[in-house]
Amino acid sequence: MGQTNEFAHRMASKTIKLVDASGNPVVGKEVALKQTNHKFLFGCGIFDAVQVANKNVSADRLTFLEVKLDKFLDVFNSATLPFYWGTFEPEKGKPLTKELKAAAQWLKERNVTVKGHPLCWHTVTAPWLLDMSNEEILKAQFARIEREVSDFKGLIDMWDVINEVVIMPIFDKYDNGITRISKQLGRVGIIKEMFAKTREFNPGATLLLNDFNTSINYEILIDGCLNAGVSIDAIGIQSHQHQGYWGREKLEEVLYRFSHFGLPLHFTENTLTSGHLMPPQIEDLNDYQIPEWPSTPEFEERQAKEVEEMYSILFKHPQVEAITAWSFSDDGAWLGAPAGFIRSDNSPKPSYEVVKKLIKNDWYTNVTCKTDDNGKVSFEGYLGDYDLVCGDKKVSFKLDKDSDSVQMLI
Amino acid sequence: MGQTNEFAHRMASKTIKLVDASGNPVVGKEVALKQTNHKFLFGCGIFDAVQVANKNVSADRLTFLEVKLDKFLDVFNSATLPFYWGTFEPEKGKPLTKELKAAAQWLKERNVTVKGHPLCWHTVTAPWLLDMSNEEILKAQFARIEREVSDFKGLIDMWDVINEVVIMPIFDKYDNGITRISKQLGRVGIIKEMFAKTREFNPGATLLLNDFNTSINYEILIDGCLNAGVSIDAIGIQSHQHQGYWGREKLEEVLYRFSHFGLPLHFTENTLTSGHLMPPQIEDLNDYQIPEWPSTPEFEERQAKEVEEMYSILFKHPQVEAITAWSFSDDGAWLGAPAGFIRSDNSPKPSYEVVKKLIKNDWYTNVTCKTDDNGKVSFEGYLGDYDLVCGDKKVSFKLDKDSDSVQMLI
Repeated sequence: MGQTNEFAHRMASKTIKLVDASGNPVVGKEVALKQTNHKFLFGCGIFDAVQVANKNVSADRLTFLEVKLDKFLDVFNSATLPFYWGTFEPEKGKPLTKELKAAAQWLKERNVTVKGHPLCWHTVTAPWLLDMSNEEILKAQFARIEREVSDFKGLIDMWDVINEVVIMPIFDKYDNGITRISKQLGRVGIIKEMFAKTREFNPGATLLLNDFNTSINYEILIDGCLNAGVSIDAIGIQSHQHQGYWGREKLEEVLYRFSHFGLPLHFTENTLTSGHLMPPQIEDLNDYQIPEWPSTPEFEERQAKEVEEMYSILFKHPQVEAITAWSFSDDGAWLGAPAGFIRSDNSPKPSYEVVKKLIKNDWYTNVTCKTDDNGKVSFEGYLGDYDLVCGDKKVSFKLDKDSDSVQMLI
Repeated sequence: MGQTNEFAHRMASKTIKLVDASGNPVVGKEVALKQTNHKFLFGCGIFDAVQVANKNVSADRLTFLEVKLDKFLDVFNSATLPFYWGTFEPEKGKPLTKELKAAAQWLKERNVTVKGHPLCWHTVTAPWLLDMSNEEILKAQFARIEREVSDFKGLIDMWDVINEVVIMPIFDKYDNGITRISKQLGRVGIIKEMFAKTREFNPGATLLLNDFNTSINYEILIDGCLNAGVSIDAIGIQSHQHQGYWGREKLEEVLYRFSHFGLPLHFTENTLTSGHLMPPQIEDLNDYQIPEWPSTPEFEERQAKEVEEMYSILFKHPQVEAITAWSFSDDGAWLGAPAGFIRSDNSPKPSYEVVKKLIKNDWYTNVTCKTDDNGKVSFEGYLGDYDLVCGDKKVSFKLDKDSDSVQMLI
């Protein structure tokens, strides 16, 4: 069970007193305590959920995607859904709200926490913003936030509010509406506005700032935002490692630098491939376009090792609360990279087995014990949801840090 | 006189009606309008003023320094004085207040605007801070600000409040009290505290943030500070160019990037040498230690050209309000660099003649005209202080943007 001290912050102890309908202690009975979910968010980008929930692909493809998502559901408990403005509302006034709601609902029914990504970004934004004045763009951006955040409240209560602000006002690959308004508002200014608007329509949501820039730039930006009163709930850190695994040293350095704000850290977009590395001279990963990027047995072993090390380092750090692998499968992976835990034919790679073992075995609690003379059982387990099973009776409960002793009726 | 459109923002027009004691217009008289000072601050680091004002050096040295400062006073109207905590108060409780007051007074009497540099910095800070807890260091830093800002109010109403904050919390060359508290407060946090404290004891002062880092880091830091409500009056930009003149392109890029905050820009520490260039691989300029760094005729010509171009670009930019050359003379120049406008023997370099011509001729107004039938003269001139001389009478006045028509009694 790996219940050693290095994960103590992920665990709690609980004493449960079992009583029967008459209030008498249930003495000397065997009790199974089975973890059913993690508090920690282990996620993937699961854009396929849109097709699966809406069944708007061919029957063959649908079957293939259902198999894929079953493998996802076997291991993970959180998912990121795409809300890129340019694809969510390609034609002004015709957003894909229905389709995305179906996807979010599908995931929610399967006990998966959903995050929307992103509400404001300069890439894949709506092209029709280009016809507007800055004032109109800002108004449209506010209206979009109001619409999506309200429409999905209850289904999606976690948002990447704004993405990649460090580069946003100096992004010069092509003109776009969001870069235009970010130049005018400034970095902290645009973050402030977008967070305030999102918060207005879902006060209880978990709101993230997200960036691929892990340099001092991002640190200073966060520092500025916090001093300016922006209510950031978690710091989002992208870690697309197409050009090679950061390694323990860089990873721990990033954790050190970004943890001093005292906020939860989410690794929002993690990539470790099972293919050759992208050449180091590529600056914008999008510039690397190759016809085929194969997954190979050798590199699959490397990926599995890297996944094991990276997930272990992150799970060990008390402020990390979420890790999202950007591509669950090589099928449909960003840049065509072999970035998934499973291959394009849905077969699992070694990394899938590794991550499954960590999440569903090493860091998961399943114990059986006997109630004592007072009807009590005590146990220590990883934080999350549990079923207590005693004979043919079952009670569900949560294990969290502030629960220690409780009485349950069975 | 160079009164072309590119400097229109530096100029104003004024119509003056001269009347005699009985209120009658003074008609057909010759009038001289002589500029006596610039509104723009042309300055140097003038630490020698401490010795000259306190006469605490040998007679020979004093004479030498007086000659040096005469040359400074011939051209410049502003000066930076040293308030490094470690040299200002080497022994706790024994600050050099008297000595610095004498220097500031000496400069003020000579119509020189004085800036204090800096109130908070991790370099040359008081070594005795190392014996304190972080709480005590912060308290001592606040007390120092209160003392200096109060003691010098009226003599010094312009401060580099805090210096080089981008690197401050990650400065790792040696332990020091200020880096310690900056780690705790964060960058925006320490800036906010230091500005608030300085403002408290001299509400009307011009307060600067100052940095050598002109990258996106500094932009994001300023953005954060402004959004956090820090009342920065001017952005200080260091430009020590020991490794070579930035050139027009970089200079204009820096101006573009830092002007969008809408704040005045001060080039607080400018260096252009008349010697060989420091090798590009040196990262911290302080690491370059050589026994002698000669000024040569060839490089003096280069320096003069660079000074001419750089000062012209800065004077042309409407938001720049001050340029301070860090070393007026090679004698005592930082790093032993031949960075002065004059050599170690007080002889002027070509750059001295160039900067004098710009400041006291090309961008300076001296005109004579005749009063018309209504006793009026109109003129256009560079912003600043003027004497109007008519016969044996003299009236002093200010030429600024919002003055157009005035009546003077002579």
